Amino acid sequence: MAAGVSGGLRYEDRRDVGLLFSGVGGGASAVVVTTNVFKSAPLLVTKETLETGDVRALVVNSGIANAATGRQGVEDAYRMQALAAETLGLEPGEVAVASTGVIGEQLPMGHVEAGIRDAAASLSRDGGAFAEAILTTDTRTKEAVAAVEIGGEIVTVGGVAKGSGMIHPNMATMLAFLTTDAAVEKHCLQSVLAEVTARTFNRVSVDGDTSPNDMVLLMANGAAGNETLTQSSGDLAAFEGAVEAVMRELAKEIARDGEGATKLIEVTVEGAESEEKAATLARAVVGSSLVKAAVYGEDANWGRVLNAMGYSGASFVPEEVELYFGPIKVFADGEPVEHDAEEANATLAGDEVTVTARLKEGEGSATVWGCDLTEEYVRINGSYRT
Amino acid sequence: MAAGVSGGLRYEDRRDVGLLFSGVGGGASAVVVTTNVFKSAPLLVTKETLETGDVRALVVNSGIANAATGRQGVEDAYRMQALAAETLGLEPGEVAVASTGVIGEQLPMGHVEAGIRDAAASLSRDGGAFAEAILTTDTRTKEAVAAVEIGGEIVTVGGVAKGSGMIHPNMATMLAFLTTDAAVEKHCLQSVLAEVTARTFNRVSVDGDTSPNDMVLLMANGAAGNETLTQSSGDLAAFEGAVEAVMRELAKEIARDGEGATKLIEVTVEGAESEEKAATLARAVVGSSLVKAAVYGEDANWGRVLNAMGYSGASFVPEEVELYFGPIKVFADGEPVEHDAEEANATLAGDEVTVTARLKEGEGSATVWGCDLTEEYVRINGSYRT
Repeated sequence: MAAGVSGGLRYEDRRDVGLLFSGVGGGASAVVVTTNVFKSAPLLVTKETLETGDVRALVVNSGIANAATGRQGVEDAYRMQALAAETLGLEPGEVAVASTGVIGEQLPMGHVEAGIRDAAASLSRDGGAFAEAILTTDTRTKEAVAAVEIGGEIVTVGGVAKGSGMIHPNMATMLAFLTTDAAVEKHCLQSVLAEVTARTFNRVSVDGDTSPNDMVLLMANGAAGNETLTQSSGDLAAFEGAVEAVMRELAKEIARDGEGATKLIEVTVEGAESEEKAATLARAVVGSSLVKAAVYGEDANWGRVLNAMGYSGASFVPEEVELYFGPIKVFADGEPVEHDAEEANATLAGDEVTVTARLKEGEGSATVWGCDLTEEYVRINGSYRT
Repeated sequence: MAAGVSGGLRYEDRRDVGLLFSGVGGGASAVVVTTNVFKSAPLLVTKETLETGDVRALVVNSGIANAATGRQGVEDAYRMQALAAETLGLEPGEVAVASTGVIGEQLPMGHVEAGIRDAAASLSRDGGAFAEAILTTDTRTKEAVAAVEIGGEIVTVGGVAKGSGMIHPNMATMLAFLTTDAAVEKHCLQSVLAEVTARTFNRVSVDGDTSPNDMVLLMANGAAGNETLTQSSGDLAAFEGAVEAVMRELAKEIARDGEGATKLIEVTVEGAESEEKAATLARAVVGSSLVKAAVYGEDANWGRVLNAMGYSGASFVPEEVELYFGPIKVFADGEPVEHDAEEANATLAGDEVTVTARLKEGEGSATVWGCDLTEEYVRINGSYRT
């Protein structure tokens, strides 16, 4: 069950407190958090909570990140956890906590408390209000769902996310919360989440900045009644596939809705020595301000793509690279391939752009997602915190 | 002596071919080139030339980068070298070659040849025309000079550079050419250039992209008559200081004149475990699109600075960081320091902005330079190649 209400944490009248709650206990949970040296208070609390047990509920607020808030911030994150537990009839250790918003301000705990009580009273099977409550500069909600049969039972995986700038001054962060009715052993769940995160959320770049609040949480309550999945289950791959489908869709939605973005950019590197190397090369391309600006300008500027690969830190033989904008080959054998420049530019005209680089090293391939760089990005991020 | 002329390589009537020439031979020379896997043809030729001997002249063109041009490009770079040598009465191995401009187009060798002959005929002691001939999207020339006494002789170091976007679609690259009348042993000269480059040009970031054409060349003809400097000379530090003064000034000018930039940003990290770690942290800050956009908006957004340090890859204790905008302390002991937000923003109002982070680890410190991110950057780089 989910809820999203306005607790009044923001100057606007927007939903800013959310709850997720499983009526069924005894399940497993897993979390992956930011690698930033700066970690927000709720993230530290959630990480600690998951280390010693499992959660069946989540409380989240938007508007204030509760990051760089010192000891008071940690106390407030524990207080959010305790308040949510109390209203839901749970132990504090059964509740995860997350925040997103402006850094360096303390939470107005009166508003947070009122929001939590309102949210608990409005829990329903509709996740729409929750999906709204976690947004910051996002322009739309992000939800995805997948179902798969496991041992004769239909198992469902649902997810909600927010993104926008990886960290915005007013508001921060990538957050994703997934729930499933599958029964999964805890360590197995953690390993699925970590692996799928590496192939999905860790391959999204809006502006290269990661925030102190980034968190992906997966709660599995086991209500589907399947035999509990473990690392050795034959059905584990099917479950992982469903989780990946949901997280990939959310990841792409985050890229597409990056601050000021007008286009989703999908960069694939194939034929690399390893998947890791392919990902390094692809990330450099999608992270290049010059590539992003060229895509915005619908200019099939292959020189910038090659250039970004060149400074990625990965070694390769330039003469062995083939480069494509959409289906059009633009570079091979160390030289430009003759092509119709207007046709190449036309591959950038839509709202989804694909760039592919083929190497001749091996079987490693990776796809990453990003967005174009626009004047609007500068306006959003150059304007004073309000 | 120097010259800069219009050879007609560009659609506009601009100077685009330059020569530097020392009437005195027998000196030493040193070069540092891009770390990009993609290297332009002239850069490969110059590197090879310097490995087997010393140059006393340089030929350079702007407009076309002669990068990603295959075998033809390498032949043309050798041809430029041979043509310049012929007109100056030198051996080809005495001439360095450089190019900057659009990637993936072949040089119009007729124009290049005409330009070289014109330039050779107009050599003079005035470097102004040469400084113009190497510009691409730069808005102004960049020149610097320093003098120092070495063993009773006055030694002069002069330099000219171009920058702008680290690589622009039409035109690319950071180039810097230094000349001195000091007598310096070749290996000693190379080591001075490499060390000073690490502290100056390698601490400039316009947009994080390095180009296939980046090159810093230093020619020392020995005309000052000082006793030849070697690694064990007591005066070497004084010479290195003069080289560093020139290169630091050029580096700052490159940052200040970054594409679309309105402000120079100087980020210093002090008290780090090592100089390298300080540089890593400072580079992450000055390279962050969010920090750059905030500076443009004159918003003293310290959260973004901390955040960039946090994802830099360097480990440190967040609670031990003190952060300053200009002289104003904004963060310490893991929490915001109360300050007048308008005063903090006022430190961003001029055209030079300083941000300082103090750690409590050791004596390592480093300063890096960058520029703000503006709508104009996006406009310049989003527009189609013309």
